[in-house]
Amino acid sequence: MSEFQLIYRYLAQFGAGPWVQLGVGDDAAVVAPPPGHVTLVSTDTQIEGRHFPTHTLPEHIAYRAVAAAASDLAAMAAHPMGMTLALTLPSADELWLHSFSLGLGRVVKDFSLPLVGGDLTRGPLALTVTVLGHAPADSCCRRSGAKSGDLVAVTGTLGDSAAGLCVLEGDILVPDGVSDASLEWLEQRFFAPTPRFEFVDWLAKYAHASIDISDGLLADLAHVAHASGVSIDIESQRLPLSQAISHWPQSQALKWALTGGDDYELAFTFPSHLSPPPGSSVIGRVLGDGSGVRVDGECLDARGYDHFQ
Amino acid sequence: MSEFQLIYRYLAQFGAGPWVQLGVGDDAAVVAPPPGHVTLVSTDTQIEGRHFPTHTLPEHIAYRAVAAAASDLAAMAAHPMGMTLALTLPSADELWLHSFSLGLGRVVKDFSLPLVGGDLTRGPLALTVTVLGHAPADSCCRRSGAKSGDLVAVTGTLGDSAAGLCVLEGDILVPDGVSDASLEWLEQRFFAPTPRFEFVDWLAKYAHASIDISDGLLADLAHVAHASGVSIDIESQRLPLSQAISHWPQSQALKWALTGGDDYELAFTFPSHLSPPPGSSVIGRVLGDGSGVRVDGECLDARGYDHFQ
Repeated sequence: MSEFQLIYRYLAQFGAGPWVQLGVGDDAAVVAPPPGHVTLVSTDTQIEGRHFPTHTLPEHIAYRAVAAAASDLAAMAAHPMGMTLALTLPSADELWLHSFSLGLGRVVKDFSLPLVGGDLTRGPLALTVTVLGHAPADSCCRRSGAKSGDLVAVTGTLGDSAAGLCVLEGDILVPDGVSDASLEWLEQRFFAPTPRFEFVDWLAKYAHASIDISDGLLADLAHVAHASGVSIDIESQRLPLSQAISHWPQSQALKWALTGGDDYELAFTFPSHLSPPPGSSVIGRVLGDGSGVRVDGECLDARGYDHFQ
Repeated sequence: MSEFQLIYRYLAQFGAGPWVQLGVGDDAAVVAPPPGHVTLVSTDTQIEGRHFPTHTLPEHIAYRAVAAAASDLAAMAAHPMGMTLALTLPSADELWLHSFSLGLGRVVKDFSLPLVGGDLTRGPLALTVTVLGHAPADSCCRRSGAKSGDLVAVTGTLGDSAAGLCVLEGDILVPDGVSDASLEWLEQRFFAPTPRFEFVDWLAKYAHASIDISDGLLADLAHVAHASGVSIDIESQRLPLSQAISHWPQSQALKWALTGGDDYELAFTFPSHLSPPPGSSVIGRVLGDGSGVRVDGECLDARGYDHFQ
């Protein structure tokens, strides 16, 4: 089967959406956000053996790469519009593509991200997803807007994805009392992250700054602190931990929550007279001038996963 | 130096443009086309040893990948707005990045394509460029609009890039009388293709269908014929050949021009009562129902470079 036929068979079926005027199949796709909205764009690459374990199911590879990329749109308080996918494969394995297309179909549907274009090349397995979103002009939520006195909150629970990866790779002892269902749930938190589009309207209205947690809470809050020219104080006891990771010793659970990465939850700051939106937890506060992140008053190394360090 | 510092030092300097509201450095970039315009998007991956020879100068790698991707915007009669670059590198080599950034700076300037976002990962050398363009709503020039009776034209000259690659790789004897300047010009046609944005306004106004020649003239015209439900007749003697490739035997020059690929010229169809725009050449005609491409009345295999064939 030729490259063109492969693309059409497996990928062109996911191309329709309210803001897509022309999808896969021409030299370029055409999207048009609602009137008065700007277009947001973000690009993420995932490479086998680096961003996901070798032999990960193609269905999981597709879901995870797209969900992770889409999370950047949610972090900017933008709604999803569409995406392109550049897929590099060692060979044109129809079984592989079939499984991949199952995951792609699910993630397209779950987050309303129609596939509008792409490229299929031969080489070591890698995916580059470019997501497009839309937001009302001037409503985007940047890293640089945090203000002294703001509260800091995060969505969902932290550290599950890092725990799930440790379990998957057999890197950690599983304590007694952790059910198979909990372990599977943790693995799903790694394979199927949830871009938090349900918070986007609240963020656009009330948040001063936001970011998605991809490098780890400390590293990502350090980006906010640096971009905003503030320092951030968080309290470890306020970090939202799932029941599943609470089976591990607290020091391990906190390490995952603080530095684990790949959570794809949102961290944001907002005026202290407001309540945080349902499904989020206040974890700390923005302090005046300065930079850096302190946990329980202590300045911790905020270095996340850095590919070239 | 950390990944973040590398990105900022080398890539963030190319981010300003008239339609860019927010460039590199946040979770996503923000672009806003002129009022009444739609957004176009196209993604291309280039892999070392497949899309460009191993040991190609980083400056050339950058220029070529971006110019090739941008050509898809020109083919749709769109103007450039910005791009993202996902760069995968075996190591964080500062010398390599410096040379790469020189090529990137040139191509950003030559075609007004500010770099608004990207991702830097470690792995086998590969680039995925996603270009964003804008065009007035309903002015996009698709593959599917060719009409019976249209003339078919191409911009520039054909086959130079394929000839340049043969020369570069030592795959072909160079006839007597070919100057070093000609050889260098051919290599430049491979390394520094020219997306034909100067034809965009004419195409938007007059053309019925257009495509950029990336897979080879025959393969790309076959896409137009198939999408439009027409057949296309071209005359080999009308193919525009550069002086440089005319030194080779005519059969070789025609082979490059018909199947060579990587030209990044535009092929388009337009009503026969019009003259083609300056800098383009009429090479044939659109016939009624049917599909496929004939050269001098003969049906040729229109298969271009197909990665999985």
